[in-house]
Amino acid sequence: MGETYGDLDHLGKVRECAQALIGLDVHALNTMYARIAALVGGTVHDLHGLTGAGTTEKSVDRIFSPFEVACLDIRGKAAGVPVSDLLGGKVRDAVPYSAYLFYKWAGHPGQDPDRFGAALDETGLIEQAKLLIDEYGFQSVKLKGGVFPPDQEIAATRALHEAFPDTPLRLDPNAAWSIATSIRVGRELEGVLQYLEDPTSGIDGMAEVAASVPMPLATNMCVVTPEHFPPAMASRAIGVLLLDHHYWGGLVRSSHIAAMCDTFGLGMSMHSNSHLGISLAAMTHLAAATPNLTFACDTHTPWQDGQDVVLPGALRFVNGAVPVPTTPGLGVELDRDALAVMNEQYEKCGIRSRDDTAYIQRFDPSFSPNKPRW
Amino acid sequence: MGETYGDLDHLGKVRECAQALIGLDVHALNTMYARIAALVGGTVHDLHGLTGAGTTEKSVDRIFSPFEVACLDIRGKAAGVPVSDLLGGKVRDAVPYSAYLFYKWAGHPGQDPDRFGAALDETGLIEQAKLLIDEYGFQSVKLKGGVFPPDQEIAATRALHEAFPDTPLRLDPNAAWSIATSIRVGRELEGVLQYLEDPTSGIDGMAEVAASVPMPLATNMCVVTPEHFPPAMASRAIGVLLLDHHYWGGLVRSSHIAAMCDTFGLGMSMHSNSHLGISLAAMTHLAAATPNLTFACDTHTPWQDGQDVVLPGALRFVNGAVPVPTTPGLGVELDRDALAVMNEQYEKCGIRSRDDTAYIQRFDPSFSPNKPRW
Repeated sequence: MGETYGDLDHLGKVRECAQALIGLDVHALNTMYARIAALVGGTVHDLHGLTGAGTTEKSVDRIFSPFEVACLDIRGKAAGVPVSDLLGGKVRDAVPYSAYLFYKWAGHPGQDPDRFGAALDETGLIEQAKLLIDEYGFQSVKLKGGVFPPDQEIAATRALHEAFPDTPLRLDPNAAWSIATSIRVGRELEGVLQYLEDPTSGIDGMAEVAASVPMPLATNMCVVTPEHFPPAMASRAIGVLLLDHHYWGGLVRSSHIAAMCDTFGLGMSMHSNSHLGISLAAMTHLAAATPNLTFACDTHTPWQDGQDVVLPGALRFVNGAVPVPTTPGLGVELDRDALAVMNEQYEKCGIRSRDDTAYIQRFDPSFSPNKPRW
Repeated sequence: MGETYGDLDHLGKVRECAQALIGLDVHALNTMYARIAALVGGTVHDLHGLTGAGTTEKSVDRIFSPFEVACLDIRGKAAGVPVSDLLGGKVRDAVPYSAYLFYKWAGHPGQDPDRFGAALDETGLIEQAKLLIDEYGFQSVKLKGGVFPPDQEIAATRALHEAFPDTPLRLDPNAAWSIATSIRVGRELEGVLQYLEDPTSGIDGMAEVAASVPMPLATNMCVVTPEHFPPAMASRAIGVLLLDHHYWGGLVRSSHIAAMCDTFGLGMSMHSNSHLGISLAAMTHLAAATPNLTFACDTHTPWQDGQDVVLPGALRFVNGAVPVPTTPGLGVELDRDALAVMNEQYEKCGIRSRDDTAYIQRFDPSFSPNKPRW
């Protein structure tokens, strides 16, 4: 099993590439990658733009990833070992994740409030964090920012720090700020943040900010493919890389990236861009087998609100960490009934490509996606 | 099976570490590495000095390597797949190696001439190259230099180029030259060399040479451990890395290094520091599964003159390339009788640590190991 993006263009390319892989051995990862690269050559997939402009290299890595994960799942099952064993063996028995806080309304517009309630200020965020910590035991907290003007988010971050003084805290405005704003916010949050994630866009901008703020900068936006490494290392743009096997070309290629981070003295955490249990298992195996992946990883699992495509029981959170599955392969099994339900939701929802801007503009026609916003 | 250095100090540490690995699963590579690191911490093994001063990191990688190769051999045999499959699958059916030329006397002092004869000038080197090419089909040639004054070696290199105009040619003086000499030789050999290997010592010196010569510089001396990567990349000291799994911590760690070379635009070849069939198999699997390892690799195999510890048949040279074994694991089997013979040679020879300087001084008491010699 592998899990990948639901964007229709992406899925179309995944299906096209799948035809070219028929008959290959599950070990033939280099050949799979080469065949996909040959089919994708020249094509640019922008997807949702979160990792910058689409490139062929990014597209190949994204398409290859679910096949690679599936092959590792099969190989683990065939060898009778968990996927973590195929990646060098686990160095921790459980992988810590962080509480991922979002500013949100009480519910989706036009729908009933959800159980998380509204979070439009520090009070709401602290309630949200308490709920997530109570239910999952998270020991790190991340706030998705870039929503309100920076001073509001500085105040909210300070309030979270006061409410959870011993909990490492991160803020991620998704590159919504200018360089000057990023430096100002970074300095004002000295001693409050474990790291500041993607305050501004681009390697050059991040480098300028990194040189002037007291905490490391993390990214899942400006270093998202191997070609970004040399300029980012030369300019010391980042101190923490947020790994994401969905776009770094699967688990083995992610382990190469982890080794590179170790070599260049970068800290590591893990990015989450919504995922289900197949990917949570894959992330957990990878993180468990990566000695230098020491920061708690991001996850959207709580926001699934219990829905998943894998059978319950294999994955759980204990003190904010997911015990590494010890059964063969990924250690999760498909729940075909649940998959059918979620597939029906997909068919009905009408969304075929992620477009955050158009969605926001349905409720705020004046919204502009231009960055920096502040 | 794994193969490692014969130096007594090294073997002692390998045996000590082996005790700490008893009971571990063959997949637990991260744990093995950590246990070895814990035992080696602080200890410095200089070995033969070819890769610079000893460090703990280098020592751990060297000690870990034979265990890792052995675990991959076992895993391949258990899964019924060749080791190349555990490294991503082969991308070539045979791995090209280069003819490795040495200046030499007709035989070891006090012994009968060997079948290769003397090679003390271009005539002898061309004869040696012809013999190796005739027997093995090599399509690349490397000359170990740093033996005679640079002008003699320039002349010899030019003569080799004239004798084999279509054969890529490399020259490796083992850092015997000053920066100025390296630049002069590099410029005089424009159009003659595929790459120039370790003309001078150290990353800074190599960077100065690299900026002033027309061909890429290769190394197996100044970038021999991950900590060398950041400064070497920042100073553009090298264009080609010569991988050697014996000191880069085994095959999987070598594949991380290969990915890093790909990321930073470095070409790759493979270093050889004498080896037997176990390592030739390991090198061949690694090179076969490394898409960007495109230069012909170095090998000392012809200089074994037929002696080996593996049963004949599994490894052979066809047009200078070794077909990748397709049987499970490394694809070679131990020849216990041959091993007994070679172990007896080891016991009798009296050499317990490699010391090239002392050996040379037996015949030339005025020899100084100080570099640069020219």
